[in-house]
Amino acid sequence: MRIGIDLGGTNIAAGLVDENGKIIKKLSTPTLAERSFEEIAADMASLAKRLVSEAGHRMSDIKSLGAGSPGAIDSESGTVLYAGNLGWTNAPLRAELERLTGLPSNIENDANAAAYGEYTAHGGDIKDFILITLGTGIGGGIIIDGKIYRGFNGAGAELGHNTLIFGGERCNCGKRGCWEVYGSVSGLINQTKAAIKENPNSLMARLGDERGTVDGRTAFDAAKAGDEAARAVVARYLEYVADGICSLVNIFEPEALLIGGGISKEGDYLLDPIKKYCEANWFCKTIRQTRLGIARLGNDAGIIGAALSENQ
Amino acid sequence: MRIGIDLGGTNIAAGLVDENGKIIKKLSTPTLAERSFEEIAADMASLAKRLVSEAGHRMSDIKSLGAGSPGAIDSESGTVLYAGNLGWTNAPLRAELERLTGLPSNIENDANAAAYGEYTAHGGDIKDFILITLGTGIGGGIIIDGKIYRGFNGAGAELGHNTLIFGGERCNCGKRGCWEVYGSVSGLINQTKAAIKENPNSLMARLGDERGTVDGRTAFDAAKAGDEAARAVVARYLEYVADGICSLVNIFEPEALLIGGGISKEGDYLLDPIKKYCEANWFCKTIRQTRLGIARLGNDAGIIGAALSENQ
Repeated sequence: MRIGIDLGGTNIAAGLVDENGKIIKKLSTPTLAERSFEEIAADMASLAKRLVSEAGHRMSDIKSLGAGSPGAIDSESGTVLYAGNLGWTNAPLRAELERLTGLPSNIENDANAAAYGEYTAHGGDIKDFILITLGTGIGGGIIIDGKIYRGFNGAGAELGHNTLIFGGERCNCGKRGCWEVYGSVSGLINQTKAAIKENPNSLMARLGDERGTVDGRTAFDAAKAGDEAARAVVARYLEYVADGICSLVNIFEPEALLIGGGISKEGDYLLDPIKKYCEANWFCKTIRQTRLGIARLGNDAGIIGAALSENQ
Repeated sequence: MRIGIDLGGTNIAAGLVDENGKIIKKLSTPTLAERSFEEIAADMASLAKRLVSEAGHRMSDIKSLGAGSPGAIDSESGTVLYAGNLGWTNAPLRAELERLTGLPSNIENDANAAAYGEYTAHGGDIKDFILITLGTGIGGGIIIDGKIYRGFNGAGAELGHNTLIFGGERCNCGKRGCWEVYGSVSGLINQTKAAIKENPNSLMARLGDERGTVDGRTAFDAAKAGDEAARAVVARYLEYVADGICSLVNIFEPEALLIGGGISKEGDYLLDPIKKYCEANWFCKTIRQTRLGIARLGNDAGIIGAALSENQ
């Protein structure tokens, strides 16, 4: 058994994971990100210990601990080089977790850990693999030859910051026209709100009113109920997503690319138009093509991937 | 000594390369791409043999032969899966070259071979490396952990077909808005011609007239001589190039990215604005950043990379 911890800006989620990548038990606690590195690391360690004792095990039963953290990570030294939303620079997370738990530990970027989790759930026998996660932004991770790809500075795979529209809307990263401005769920919500303004009598507008909020489901739900304005929003949004996927496939030609994040629950309604767009637009039309699919593990991907990442 | 062959749509170039990656002797012959696979392979083999005998060596002095070919390559089987401009599908190039020369042979995609050549010339001691080549299109190659990255179908690293402008001008590949539509030398020539139409009295227009043609140097030469219209063309063109580089750096965070192709002879006049744009726009501003530079080997990169690619 191993422990995987997914350190997020809001919550710390930890899981006891068996050798098959199944979560046996899960616990979480608020991150309270304004606290010091030492306090947060201490909470990560005590969560790991609680998990073991509440599951009726001893620390000596545990082979290793893996943690996924936001930011740029030097996995060799186990250091969080920079994590803006935690306010950390050069935080020695592995050393601290090893000191507090006595377990051999490994630190990965959280999105990379999630990609590794999905990769193992996908069978782990394919060569090159990409996970993209549509959420507040677009996250992603790349597995090459079975190994997490990190870049030379631990900040590789910022897939959401591939340009989609040169000179387009300003992204949080400072660059204009990043894919995540258009293809993230935040992007979809902005596109939905703009369409509601232009179509105040649409079902989509009514749904937003009734629910008191416009979210990532508003346009999808209205589109499925036949609302033309919502269908246009969804169609355009999925083109943004698909075009960015096409670009990644042209660059990497991965054996499989999976789409994760809450919105991936839309399943084939999301996937089919993306597949159609990609098959018409990607570079390789005459030879073997990338398999596109929906991710399986949901929010557990980060825990499972971190737990299994020991030899990465 | 090894032999490297760069199979192009126009010429077959072959070189005798020493263990330090230096070309000792070079020969070339027209490809005559409309010929059969067997005829072209036979010419590649006889070029290799001529090279050895004219340099005063014997075939037994040669360790291996490497060839870079356009198209999607299965390097494990040494097969050219698909090469549109040669009309080849599943061409067993390695087997044919081994049969004709008796040398252990290796086949790589030509752009990947060039990237490997530049990588070795760069010292070969860095982790992750990208070469982009600005020419008729934008070619590229990716070296990860010292190995050529090929994708699962041998068609990886189509870096020019990363979208720059969603819904933009149609690319030869069928997709709209590919980086190479804007950032290749062909793109620059189109942008120069459009600007000449709008500025018929500019120095740039006069240069085009005097030389009887508009090429990749027209706007650069006029800009250096102070022509404002040409400066605007060059500035915008370099933004296209730089934005695409930014995207690749955000995805890969390579230790170094080099720019090749004939236009890279512009040196710092090309590189400095690209560096400035990237440093202002790429994701990692607070930790170690990718080194940007100009490729060194020119047209020899493909020969040298192919020759040294035996263990790839």
